[in-house]
Amino acid sequence: MMFTEAEIEYLDGQRLGRLATVGPDGYPQNRPVGVHYNTEKQTIDVVGYDLSTSRKWRNAESHPYVSFVVDDLVSVKPWRARGIEVRGEAELLRGPGVSPFGDEVIRIHPRRILSWGLDPENSRRMVKRDVAAPAG
Amino acid sequence: MMFTEAEIEYLDGQRLGRLATVGPDGYPQNRPVGVHYNTEKQTIDVVGYDLSTSRKWRNAESHPYVSFVVDDLVSVKPWRARGIEVRGEAELLRGPGVSPFGDEVIRIHPRRILSWGLDPENSRRMVKRDVAAPAG
Repeated sequence: MMFTEAEIEYLDGQRLGRLATVGPDGYPQNRPVGVHYNTEKQTIDVVGYDLSTSRKWRNAESHPYVSFVVDDLVSVKPWRARGIEVRGEAELLRGPGVSPFGDEVIRIHPRRILSWGLDPENSRRMVKRDVAAPAG
Repeated sequence: MMFTEAEIEYLDGQRLGRLATVGPDGYPQNRPVGVHYNTEKQTIDVVGYDLSTSRKWRNAESHPYVSFVVDDLVSVKPWRARGIEVRGEAELLRGPGVSPFGDEVIRIHPRRILSWGLDPENSRRMVKRDVAAPAG
């Protein structure tokens, strides 16, 4: 498995993530997007209205490295933050049925995953790992 | 003024933003950070524990273009999102008093600002503008 059960449960419970892409001028861009974990593909599927005409789509087309982060605060006192960052390669897909979430998708294939605050046994633990593309 | 009153009010009311930097491998990285608007400098001041030894600091040192986004959902039904994205140049500062928020700061000098959902007259309005560095 690419993601742990705790990470998948967290992704499924959150509404908004932020997608960083790199623009043609070399500036990163950072946009709020919905959170959709694709169980079958073990990817993050970014969808949205008119996605394929968006700047983030064109960015991912010319520079396919992206980073997606979802995080929130469990409590302020004591400070308890949790979240997951997925760095990966973007695949652009268009057409009926390309994803259960929509017909235009920026699909993020994870290459490195960082998560924090998701382990109930140790809420301060930060987990970082490189992940390989699944075979096939 | 670099930011509008509505944007400053929004920044002052939010706790978490996400900072996108570009890593040495060309991958963007996307990390949650606190939100601190510096009134005097008209900048976003990113602070944090051991900031100057962090990866985001080293990223901003070698590639000073960054993007910072703060956003949230006002309501789900109807869907009403709001937020602000600040793309800019990072200045790295260390030493007592460099910022009211801390002694190690990634200071974001805005170059382009996008905001949405902050205009009470028109909650769907997206504002985009390039901003120049203040004189002096």
